[in-house]
Amino acid sequence: MPRFMDVHHGMQGITADQLHQAHEADLAVEKEEGVHFEQAWADPESGIVYCLSEAPSAEAVRRVHERAGHRPDEIHPIPFTA
Amino acid sequence: MPRFMDVHHGMQGITADQLHQAHEADLAVEKEEGVHFEQAWADPESGIVYCLSEAPSAEAVRRVHERAGHRPDEIHPIPFTA
Repeated sequence: MPRFMDVHHGMQGITADQLHQAHEADLAVEKEEGVHFEQAWADPESGIVYCLSEAPSAEAVRRVHERAGHRPDEIHPIPFTA
Repeated sequence: MPRFMDVHHGMQGITADQLHQAHEADLAVEKEEGVHFEQAWADPESGIVYCLSEAPSAEAVRRVHERAGHRPDEIHPIPFTA
């Protein structure tokens, strides 16, 4: 299944709890779109959150994030991993 | 140990082999700086490479990447993971 890295900006000050809750909100709806959010990382200073997922398409990634209440600013297919 | 996500831009057209070789070049020198590059992901279309590492500092991440021949454009501390 294709993998994606999506990026959220403007998240300055995000806490560990908020990141955890956002990730749980994704996990709660992801199956309906055939997506799995593997991991998320936050830099509260620059306000960036990175999310790594497996999904049938970038649109499926976007739909899960939107349904969970946090539309991503960028979604990148990442066909290569090392 | 702190974790970091660093980002390389301008890598349009990068191949799986090139990503693998770049990652191997990091692994070859990382120990001398106390860094470990865990994983790297490439989007050859937008030319972005993301690298996840554990390191004593952002400067240590930068030094390993520079010694391996690929200075990063951004280095973000990522204190929170979900």
